[in-house]
Amino acid sequence: MRIKCIISYDGADYFGYQAQEGLVTIESMLDNALYKIFLEHIKIYASGRTDRGVHAIGQVIHFDTTKKINPNGLLKALNSYLKEDIRVLSCTEVDDNFHARFSVKEKEYHYLIKTNNYTVFDRRYMAHYYNLSLPLMKEAIKKYIGTHNFKGLCSGSVDPRKDFVKTIYEAYIEEEGDILRFVFKGTGFLKYQIRRMMGLLVEIGLGKKNIDIIDKVFETKDNKISHLSVGSEGLYLVKVVY
Amino acid sequence: MRIKCIISYDGADYFGYQAQEGLVTIESMLDNALYKIFLEHIKIYASGRTDRGVHAIGQVIHFDTTKKINPNGLLKALNSYLKEDIRVLSCTEVDDNFHARFSVKEKEYHYLIKTNNYTVFDRRYMAHYYNLSLPLMKEAIKKYIGTHNFKGLCSGSVDPRKDFVKTIYEAYIEEEGDILRFVFKGTGFLKYQIRRMMGLLVEIGLGKKNIDIIDKVFETKDNKISHLSVGSEGLYLVKVVY
Repeated sequence: MRIKCIISYDGADYFGYQAQEGLVTIESMLDNALYKIFLEHIKIYASGRTDRGVHAIGQVIHFDTTKKINPNGLLKALNSYLKEDIRVLSCTEVDDNFHARFSVKEKEYHYLIKTNNYTVFDRRYMAHYYNLSLPLMKEAIKKYIGTHNFKGLCSGSVDPRKDFVKTIYEAYIEEEGDILRFVFKGTGFLKYQIRRMMGLLVEIGLGKKNIDIIDKVFETKDNKISHLSVGSEGLYLVKVVY
Repeated sequence: MRIKCIISYDGADYFGYQAQEGLVTIESMLDNALYKIFLEHIKIYASGRTDRGVHAIGQVIHFDTTKKINPNGLLKALNSYLKEDIRVLSCTEVDDNFHARFSVKEKEYHYLIKTNNYTVFDRRYMAHYYNLSLPLMKEAIKKYIGTHNFKGLCSGSVDPRKDFVKTIYEAYIEEEGDILRFVFKGTGFLKYQIRRMMGLLVEIGLGKKNIDIIDKVFETKDNKISHLSVGSEGLYLVKVVY
């Protein structure tokens, strides 16, 4: 039987989602918890990786087991073996056609920036920038909407075979008191894409770069134009739609 | 010259305020930072200790130095040597009569409980209890106001010489969406006093204990009547008034 789980985690103390030798990652914690339940290593498939320090409100994983198990019992067992900073929110049995990564239709990420009154209680969960121009950023973020080649906005080491064309369905900014919430919904996102998109928005918001820089990055596909990659602390994988 | 500093810290990763051999505490971090600046160990006086995991928004310390130093420069230097979870908010030169502990007129503590939608991002910063009766707790918290002998509401190992009579000037509950903020202002608080006062309020709010239990604890001064001490994660030293 195939099980789908929705998972939330505070990524601040983890070296990202993916298992890495000798490092504490979300996947390694899930792997340990599943091992304690099934007494064998179970291959876990996630909707995608999240980087070191990035949070998840609705990460999705799936795995197969030959053992018959009650998904609600599994949910409780998993949470009892996981630390409090990783919570399994739901476990459901799904069809064999479902694949946590390949069946993804849409992903939603949020990025939080506090613009005032930054405290010690914010540092794990949001970035802070002062004096950002909200009108300029609201204008600029619209440029990301649509289908573009995002090669100029992804990680430095780019795989030449990779498909850099992605579609962003929605991109907007919500104000919540001192906090700006940047919302991105799209088919999928490349490594560091949102943090570099955010970097450009911040530079535009600070008046350091002109709004046209975004068109230039799309045209030239040159990932050396955008220099600022904002911190992982403000980034949340909020939802995966199938 | 005598320097007064107001300090904020996220206590979640610390073994409390007070320096203890081999443990990472707020005081040991401050001591290290001051040593790097003054090249000698400087005795630090705080308004009081906070326990393991307890946070501070406005803890106050003072110390003396024979070296002439600009308080604003000291503020920047201290923050550059401290980790981001401890921030010095202000440094000012004060009169020799000022004492961080002995000059305290009033202390304000808050305790946060989330009553719904508890997430992985809340666990370091607030407790969670469901199905609390707010009217019952609002009625009960009033009983703490005034001058009482709090022997029945402090830590198990009680020093017989200690003065257990304290005055609480204000005690009330504010609602902020899913969060209840319990506010306590008083002359001073004994070890675990607020967490045990909160424990009784929670038991009353859950309908497990009658509101009269508070009178009984005051009358008998028996600290075995209140069993629940709520977690340190929800407790904040907010302000010290001199």
